[in-house]
Amino acid sequence: MNTPTILTGDRPTGPLHLGHFVGSLRQRVALQQTHNQFVLIADLQGLTDNGSNPQKIRDNIPEVLADYLAAGIDPNLTTICLQSALPALAELTMLYMNIVTVARVERNPTVKNEIAQKGFARSLPVGFMAYPISQAADITAFKAECVPVGDDQLPMIEQTNEIVHKMNSLLPVPVLRHCKAMLSDTSRLPGIDGSAKMSKSLGNTLHLSASEETIHCAVSAMYTDPNHLKVSDPGEIEGNVVFTYLDAFHPDKDKVAAMKAHYQAGGLGDRACKNELEACLQELIAPMRERRAMYMRDKGELMAMLKRGTERAQGVTQETLREVKVGLGVPVF
Amino acid sequence: MNTPTILTGDRPTGPLHLGHFVGSLRQRVALQQTHNQFVLIADLQGLTDNGSNPQKIRDNIPEVLADYLAAGIDPNLTTICLQSALPALAELTMLYMNIVTVARVERNPTVKNEIAQKGFARSLPVGFMAYPISQAADITAFKAECVPVGDDQLPMIEQTNEIVHKMNSLLPVPVLRHCKAMLSDTSRLPGIDGSAKMSKSLGNTLHLSASEETIHCAVSAMYTDPNHLKVSDPGEIEGNVVFTYLDAFHPDKDKVAAMKAHYQAGGLGDRACKNELEACLQELIAPMRERRAMYMRDKGELMAMLKRGTERAQGVTQETLREVKVGLGVPVF
Repeated sequence: MNTPTILTGDRPTGPLHLGHFVGSLRQRVALQQTHNQFVLIADLQGLTDNGSNPQKIRDNIPEVLADYLAAGIDPNLTTICLQSALPALAELTMLYMNIVTVARVERNPTVKNEIAQKGFARSLPVGFMAYPISQAADITAFKAECVPVGDDQLPMIEQTNEIVHKMNSLLPVPVLRHCKAMLSDTSRLPGIDGSAKMSKSLGNTLHLSASEETIHCAVSAMYTDPNHLKVSDPGEIEGNVVFTYLDAFHPDKDKVAAMKAHYQAGGLGDRACKNELEACLQELIAPMRERRAMYMRDKGELMAMLKRGTERAQGVTQETLREVKVGLGVPVF
Repeated sequence: MNTPTILTGDRPTGPLHLGHFVGSLRQRVALQQTHNQFVLIADLQGLTDNGSNPQKIRDNIPEVLADYLAAGIDPNLTTICLQSALPALAELTMLYMNIVTVARVERNPTVKNEIAQKGFARSLPVGFMAYPISQAADITAFKAECVPVGDDQLPMIEQTNEIVHKMNSLLPVPVLRHCKAMLSDTSRLPGIDGSAKMSKSLGNTLHLSASEETIHCAVSAMYTDPNHLKVSDPGEIEGNVVFTYLDAFHPDKDKVAAMKAHYQAGGLGDRACKNELEACLQELIAPMRERRAMYMRDKGELMAMLKRGTERAQGVTQETLREVKVGLGVPVF
């Protein structure tokens, strides 16, 4: 039982895309072989900035679930669970809220940035302000040791460990476990338009459900080197989305290296590179698209699967809550 | 089933005293005959400003419970329940936090006053800031229509009704019920020293467990009219704690009226008034003290009783949560 525990997850605010595939899904498929992995569909956290639009969250739960399965996350190896159906997470959040000051969460750089990005100003919901605490509840409820995050999320891990330290100091024996950030070694996938980030709001995504036609159009429209006008001209690799994607997705690294050299020297056209990339993306996405469509045909079974994972997660999180309550002397009925 | 529902309760931060008896316990004993009454031992709310001292909250749960029973609250007529053992309250709080802005809770006059009183400044816990939301979750989870409060708590009721309105507007059919404040018609009981409020921190209380000796000393030391030096002098009724208490506790209102007239005219000594009051307080407290001691002898049975009430409350609050979740489209497993 020395398998380390991982908690990761997504807010169900839209279907997942290739950015998620590169940034997290691929790793999860590998990590489920070596780790005790929990993947949380964070619907409550999704509501923190969609409080007035709950339909969006509701509708995207099966979408995200189908994406997980399509990408190869195996519910027999990974516990996929639903945040709102784990009352222990809400209860731990309430307990932690008493040992974290408003000043401390306001100082959290991740929260500061996100508040600025989302333009909340004076209309900041209390739930959004409190979300680092809620996230600490998620991580600690599962006693996760590793949390895969981007480097912009490091302050959240720091805040979680502060809560762990403070809460453990109130208990006769420590119950909560400190966690470590597991930084992804792949850099962020740019949008097909060359934007720094693939993002639904920028309309520059490729979903796991993308059709053959959509993939073809996306690759055709993909940003390359705007100064590479003739095939014989030398081309730029830096900022050229086609090569970034070839790096991220092409199985044959040597071939990509040779193509890069050729492109930089001149004599390799954008169309040829795009054909190579398109073939590789069609091959990657086709089986995911098919599996995804199959899962989406039976949403009842999808939700039943989520229920089974959630029940397993309830056992783990209720036990942590019980230990914290007993330690604090809160009666457990 | 047209019996109106009432929610009321106390933070278990210390045993209850005559101030509570006059301000709430007496009403509850009457209301349980005509209302569907829930009394919540708000241990989670107690932790909002005792996050680092959970023992205090834990130890006072049976104390408050014994006070309730001693005062005549009947667990067969009133559902006495424990806040921390009702996960629906934490879950509803999490949902409501997304539809209330930080600016709105900061503007709540009750919260503003309490923050100032408690001297939190920059060390304000998030849980304390969020407590109007948590209180709205308590009230609405029970679908309480009446909430007995002091007039300083009216802004809390207003905030609760705002949340009810906003949340109902997100649901296909309204689930939550608007509530009304039930203002107590008795004014606040002063401390035995003449302070405006009987309060543990001022050391001017008389507990329901007070011994005969303690009652005697308290009445002897009680603040009267400092200028009433000779029995034959006319005395002041206004601000004279002995008469305030006679008004609050003496069963024979005519007798008290006659005493007041006599005292104001001159010729009635403080000692005679205090003897009258002491007899009446001894008679009031003695049976409560005995019942209280009996209950405290079996804390196991006390907690079992609380568990039974809490289980009943779980049924009610889980059902409200379920209705809200279904309305929002959050999956219910």
